[in-house]
Amino acid sequence: MAKMKAPSGFRDFLPDACRKRGELMRRIRAVYERFGYEPIETPAMENLAVFLGKGGGENEKLMFKLLNRGEKLARALEGKIKDENELADMGLRFDLTVPLARFFAEHRANLPTPFKRYHIGPVWRAERAQHGRFREFVQCDVDVLASSSLMVEADVLLATTTALNELGFSDLEVRLNSRKLLTALVLGSGVTADLAPTAITALDKLEKIGVEGVRTELTERAVSAEAAARLLECFAAARTLAGDALLAEIEKRLVADWKALDAQAAAALTAEIRQVLALTPDLPAGKLVFDPFLARGLDYYTGPIFEIAAAGVPFSLAGGGRYDEMVGAFCGQPVPACGFSIGFERIYTLMEERGMFGAAQRAADVLVAATAPEAERAAVETAQLFRAALLRADCFPGQAKLPRIFELAEKKAIPVVALVGPAELASGTVGLRELATRQTHPVPRAEAAAKLKSLLGS
Amino acid sequence: MAKMKAPSGFRDFLPDACRKRGELMRRIRAVYERFGYEPIETPAMENLAVFLGKGGGENEKLMFKLLNRGEKLARALEGKIKDENELADMGLRFDLTVPLARFFAEHRANLPTPFKRYHIGPVWRAERAQHGRFREFVQCDVDVLASSSLMVEADVLLATTTALNELGFSDLEVRLNSRKLLTALVLGSGVTADLAPTAITALDKLEKIGVEGVRTELTERAVSAEAAARLLECFAAARTLAGDALLAEIEKRLVADWKALDAQAAAALTAEIRQVLALTPDLPAGKLVFDPFLARGLDYYTGPIFEIAAAGVPFSLAGGGRYDEMVGAFCGQPVPACGFSIGFERIYTLMEERGMFGAAQRAADVLVAATAPEAERAAVETAQLFRAALLRADCFPGQAKLPRIFELAEKKAIPVVALVGPAELASGTVGLRELATRQTHPVPRAEAAAKLKSLLGS
Repeated sequence: MAKMKAPSGFRDFLPDACRKRGELMRRIRAVYERFGYEPIETPAMENLAVFLGKGGGENEKLMFKLLNRGEKLARALEGKIKDENELADMGLRFDLTVPLARFFAEHRANLPTPFKRYHIGPVWRAERAQHGRFREFVQCDVDVLASSSLMVEADVLLATTTALNELGFSDLEVRLNSRKLLTALVLGSGVTADLAPTAITALDKLEKIGVEGVRTELTERAVSAEAAARLLECFAAARTLAGDALLAEIEKRLVADWKALDAQAAAALTAEIRQVLALTPDLPAGKLVFDPFLARGLDYYTGPIFEIAAAGVPFSLAGGGRYDEMVGAFCGQPVPACGFSIGFERIYTLMEERGMFGAAQRAADVLVAATAPEAERAAVETAQLFRAALLRADCFPGQAKLPRIFELAEKKAIPVVALVGPAELASGTVGLRELATRQTHPVPRAEAAAKLKSLLGS
Repeated sequence: MAKMKAPSGFRDFLPDACRKRGELMRRIRAVYERFGYEPIETPAMENLAVFLGKGGGENEKLMFKLLNRGEKLARALEGKIKDENELADMGLRFDLTVPLARFFAEHRANLPTPFKRYHIGPVWRAERAQHGRFREFVQCDVDVLASSSLMVEADVLLATTTALNELGFSDLEVRLNSRKLLTALVLGSGVTADLAPTAITALDKLEKIGVEGVRTELTERAVSAEAAARLLECFAAARTLAGDALLAEIEKRLVADWKALDAQAAAALTAEIRQVLALTPDLPAGKLVFDPFLARGLDYYTGPIFEIAAAGVPFSLAGGGRYDEMVGAFCGQPVPACGFSIGFERIYTLMEERGMFGAAQRAADVLVAATAPEAERAAVETAQLFRAALLRADCFPGQAKLPRIFELAEKKAIPVVALVGPAELASGTVGLRELATRQTHPVPRAEAAAKLKSLLGS
């Protein structure tokens, strides 16, 4: 019966998890909307041409493709199939950014400019099944398209940190860097242009494997010892400085020490960072720091990049940055863009582990049950009375012994059972039994909703 | 560039549509929860073994399958592929009922019994693209598993009609029949057992093609002229009767006229209908009527079946019924079940066409803009002031001429623009411009949120 389970790497969500995930989405959505971001939705699948070679990088290789159907498939199966692309025209989305670019290109004439949107929805990747990796998971993105103003960076950053704060995370540390500045640093140190991407990948591991680990990696990646030494020395200096002093130090290395850039070019690079810092007011529950060695994985970033961590959490909660090329590739003209992604699944797991959701929500306020067949219609009517008062009323179907009914109420965290039997029918009453105190309150049917409200309030 | 559009048959949703669809889901969800239904979620895909031969009928043929990957695919491509099942192990769900059955079988030990769940989510079918048919669409189901009490029928029916009523549909007509009774009628009239399903399919068209149309269909489907005449005569009688009188007439045909059943067996069949009618209180905004010729398409129904129509709407808004066999097939033991499905997409389209959603919702309460570069930071801070007061504030990034900013606000239905320029910077004020009146109100920054609230309230 193994085949009768959810496929490997995919998850079902039971009611308690569903309610918590729904709450998480609602809270994030409320913040995004407070910042003027608008919702969009795109299909689960896109034509393969949309995905291929659009900066998805490794994720593109993890795409699920949809098997062609009908005649198209029959024709392919007649011959010798050389390539899986003969078998598939569509793929499931592996992120929400590529679909956004396609969406913007298609609907641009009907969208406001700049276009601020959020999108919370599932994406699919054929990850190897392992702890904490899922093949279907929710992404949660805000992006602003068609503006190159760095006020956008301030806006997406404030929206994201506000959302994280409202989920219960404080002590946020936002690290900021510029892709252009990082590339200039790497080239300025003497790394050749062809090795710059691999050097950045190695530098990205500084936090994980330390200075000597990165030096080994750089050497293994064919970076000269001299360039590696310059970069790591610069890193050491960076760790002792911050803000303006750090920016000045970076400029000094690039201009005076390494003679890599003239003063004007270096100032233009650091100006981007200075401006983001200048445009961003104090963050809710966090601070914004310049980190010249922050790299971020994805290739498509072109300007400021960000990563958000929280004190005591061993992974980043969110990240983002400017990617001015990708959307334009779909539109045939430049479309600057900048966005943030919140790590929904990691945050959900963390909040669940740390009990940040509070107690399990009850399935209903009351469970109505008939204690004899002739009271079944009256039980349904009683449930309707509660519902008319906007109380949440479950109704036990059919007949069962009382312990079985109480057990169901407990399992669903329903605090009160409303019993209707022959005696209640005769007297026009309902017996409201509180499970916690095991007390039963007989009340006239017409007063049952009011009485339940007072029991729930106590 | 055709490939850079959403795939054929799939839809994007722009912000206005997204908000309306979200509202529709929230309103339906609120009703289901008021009835004690709990949310669940299942993956988009299931192992193919889950779907095959489980009563999906025609829908099973419309399933999208996922192309296998990696070594598995490579091995298949090496040989001559005889069957597409060599290429796929998983399919996208084409309904929410088969996944529910698999879910219940897998998680039964952790679920309350009876299990009342709702599920609102997308399903996928490779429908031929045509007006109003989509390949990705939302289904919206309530079901109760593991109870055979007919109180379940009353509960799902009340929940569904309440939801439809709260969406704005009144004058609902709910037709009720019993699959067992319909089958008995068809067999009793003299249709042979092997022709019963095809005869039911023909009878299902009574509303569409009329009595003589159905007579022709029945003959074409090899049903004897005598049996057809009996059925259609019974239908004519049914149209003049209702409730108890109609039930008595049906019993009379089965027992006295056709000698198909003895009195006790006939009474047992009609008792099911009588009991549903007896257990169901007055519906919100509608009536429940017994219709002995209601058939419903799907094969898996085993007991009472329902269809809900609204006055002036040319299609049914919801339907459902009892299916006591399907879930048990996954569990290895009987699990009675009954559920309703609301036609989410049809209802969304109808409500949109009829203007049942009210005016387009605004993207934000205010659009803050800096009229000079030196005011950009102040604009971001002003937006933050509004947000701190839980107002929804968009912030225009960078610099643009005023008409361009006003145009953006209008496009996003934002009623007020808050302007910050050199003069406002110097005086610590904000200029709140109402787009409708073209009036600008200068207010101290600290009072801007309160003033905006009063402008929005007026």
